[in-house]
Parts: sequence; C-alpha cells; structure tokens
Amino acid sequence: MKKVVTVKRRALEANEERAQALRDRFAKSKTLVVNLISSPGSGKTTLLEATVRGLEGELSCAVLEGDIATENDADRIRALGVPAHQILTGGSCHLDARQVEGGLSAGNLPDVDILFIENVGNLICPTTYDLGEDFKVVVLSVAEGDDKPVKYPAIFSRAEVAVISKSDLLPHVPFDLDSVRSQITSLNPDGTILVTASLTGEGIDGWLDLLRQRFATKRRATQ
Amino acid sequence: MKKVVTVKRRALEANEERAQALRDRFAKSKTLVVNLISSPGSGKTTLLEATVRGLEGELSCAVLEGDIATENDADRIRALGVPAHQILTGGSCHLDARQVEGGLSAGNLPDVDILFIENVGNLICPTTYDLGEDFKVVVLSVAEGDDKPVKYPAIFSRAEVAVISKSDLLPHVPFDLDSVRSQITSLNPDGTILVTASLTGEGIDGWLDLLRQRFATKRRATQ
Repeated sequence: MKKVVTVKRRALEANEERAQALRDRFAKSKTLVVNLISSPGSGKTTLLEATVRGLEGELSCAVLEGDIATENDADRIRALGVPAHQILTGGSCHLDARQVEGGLSAGNLPDVDILFIENVGNLICPTTYDLGEDFKVVVLSVAEGDDKPVKYPAIFSRAEVAVISKSDLLPHVPFDLDSVRSQITSLNPDGTILVTASLTGEGIDGWLDLLRQRFATKRRATQ
Repeated sequence: MKKVVTVKRRALEANEERAQALRDRFAKSKTLVVNLISSPGSGKTTLLEATVRGLEGELSCAVLEGDIATENDADRIRALGVPAHQILTGGSCHLDARQVEGGLSAGNLPDVDILFIENVGNLICPTTYDLGEDFKVVVLSVAEGDDKPVKYPAIFSRAEVAVISKSDLLPHVPFDLDSVRSQITSLNPDGTILVTASLTGEGIDGWLDLLRQRFATKRRATQ
C-alpha cells in the first residue's frame, strides 16, 4: 500500500511540473482555461454547446474533450464550428497535464481566448490533477440529488465555480436547492454558485458574464 | 509510467486473492452478493430502499455502503430496520476486497440471504475491482443521457444486469431508450436490462424477481 501511495505521489509531482508549463504557455497566449468536472451525464457538453453559441463572434473558443471512448463530444462541438479535439484516455478515469499537452498538439488547436477542458465524467479522480487551468468548474445536475456536495467534498471545495445544471427538472425531482447552496458554501465560502438549464437557457447569461469577467481579468493580468 | 502500471497490476492481483476468499466465505454462508455500480446520483440507495422493503419478511438482507464521506446512505438503510455498515474510503474512488472484508467485521453484519454492496459513485474505477460478488449491477438514470453505455463500455460489458433508473423522468428528458438498449446489448449480449423508477415502483417487481431467482440458484448450487 505504501508503495502505491509513493508511486501515486510521484505521478502527481510530475503532473504538477507539466501543469506549470501549460500555465506559462496559457499566460503567454492570454488564454483563459476552464477545467469542467462532473459525474457522467450532468450536462457538461450541453453547457459547452450553449456557451460557445453564446460567445460566438465575441470571444474565440476551443474545446478539449476527455473521454474513455468515442469522439461523440468533440463531434458535437465541431458541429457548431468551434475547434475541438477528443482525448481518449482508453480507460483512465481523469485527464492529466501530459494528455492536455498532447491534445493541444494533436488537435492542432489555435490560440484562443477561452479553452474549455471537459474532463472525463467522474466526480472524484479528476479533482487532484492540475491541468494548468485558471479555475475548475464543478457541474451538478439537480437529477443527481441534493446530498452530493457533502458526499464528494474535495471537488466542491476546490472548484471556484459550481454550476447546478438541469434546473428545468426541479419540478420533477426531490432537490433542496437551499441545502445544496449551503453545503457548497460551507465547503468553499468564496466560491460562486450558478443555477442553469442549458436546454431552456436559464442562467446561461450569468455564466457567460462570469466567463467574460474572468477573461478580462486574465487579459489585464498578463499584459 | 511503466512502474505505475506494474504497481497497479500487483494491487489488482492482491485484490483478486482477497476477493476469492470472500467468495468462498459467501458460498459457505449461501449469501447472494450484489455489487452495485453507477455514477453519483443515479439512484442506487433509493433502489436499495425499495428492494429491502420489497423483500421484507421473505429474504434477509444487509448492505455495505461505500462512500468517500458521510454516513448518510447507511443511515437511510438502517432506518428501514436492515443491518448496514458504511465504509468510508476517505478519498479512494472505489471499494476493494480488503475494505469489504473489513466492513463485514467492523459492521458486525450477520450472515444474510442477500448482501448488497453499494460501491462509491463512479462509473469507471469500481469496474476492475472484484469484491467477491455473484454479479455486478450497473445503474444508469435516464437523466444522465442516452450516450453513456458506449462512452463507459467497460462497466456495461461486465455488469450482468443493467438497471435504467428514474424512468419517471422519461417525459422530461431527451433519452432514447431503444438506443440505450441496443448499446448495452451490443456490449453485453447475455445481460439483462431492467427499467425502473424506485419512487413510483415501476419495474421493481421484475428486479425483485431477478434477485429471488438468483438467490434460489445460488442456494441450489451451494447445497
């Protein structure tokens, strides 16, 4: 067991170095980088579809999609005219900085204003792997239930932004929004909580405004 | 990287040995053991609540609950008068045979007809860890979307039973049930697919019948 832990620590240290190199590169290109993390099926790709549509003609975007199998998600983004590359992990349960580095080269992605990295659907393992992002976003759909933040505390503590998605299902599922807000706030008092429904557009303007502000802040900071 | 893979392989081999010891123990006690795997929030605990209610007075049950944090799920089962023990993995993304062994002792669980092991909410990592179970069940809620089996092929190939849960939400979400059935069947031609809604009771009788049959088969085989 001790050996497993040691090897894992070394892998994490190597990842940190690579993530720092990515962060330097993104500072140079003044690219805001957002790492989206959630369970499978919380609606990350649908949120990204709404996002790139909403920012069209205003900020240039690209997407790195992480999945165990299929090119489906990258295809969905490319169908909207936005550059996307699919990273297939072939079984691995999270993205790491090396895969992001490789994906940027293999996908031949241009320097853009905002790069979205959609992590593998998993609320646990992606949490500890820095990808050189500016911030992590955790997405939780209301269909997943209102007990999740306290059951998966690491990601809700570390993600600067929590998006409560699929709010159009609120009338049909037991979900205490106030309880979820209070769980997230106690895990991360400085975080931002947004409530969205990508299919109806609810809350998307607030999300786009947050991205605009974060992009403007990064541009100023790296001037 | 090679070193990480070797260490992981050794951990898996050690797990196999422990799982075999558990399997022998469960054969002796004639206990049917079911390992439930899904994303967070697909409704595993709610399915178990409906299950132990449905089998009350007929088959004795116990539950091992795997979570990163909180005793919430074990509390929900114990509230129904069924013995349950919470295994807290403290960050680990799946249960292993050692934890099941420890949970059985620490929880002082009696020998029962059916032991349910609710794995940590994660559609990926629990797949490769044998817990000495008779079979794996994958649970997928219709709110998670109809593209999941091909995106997470390992668990849908290995689980003998796939439960499509929260079918009461079908009128409110885009979900092509025929497509999901066909994805699962192509990954696992001999598997069983059930459609359930634990909150309304839809499909629960079929699930209980499956458990009764599997229990009867095991009892005959271990006589």
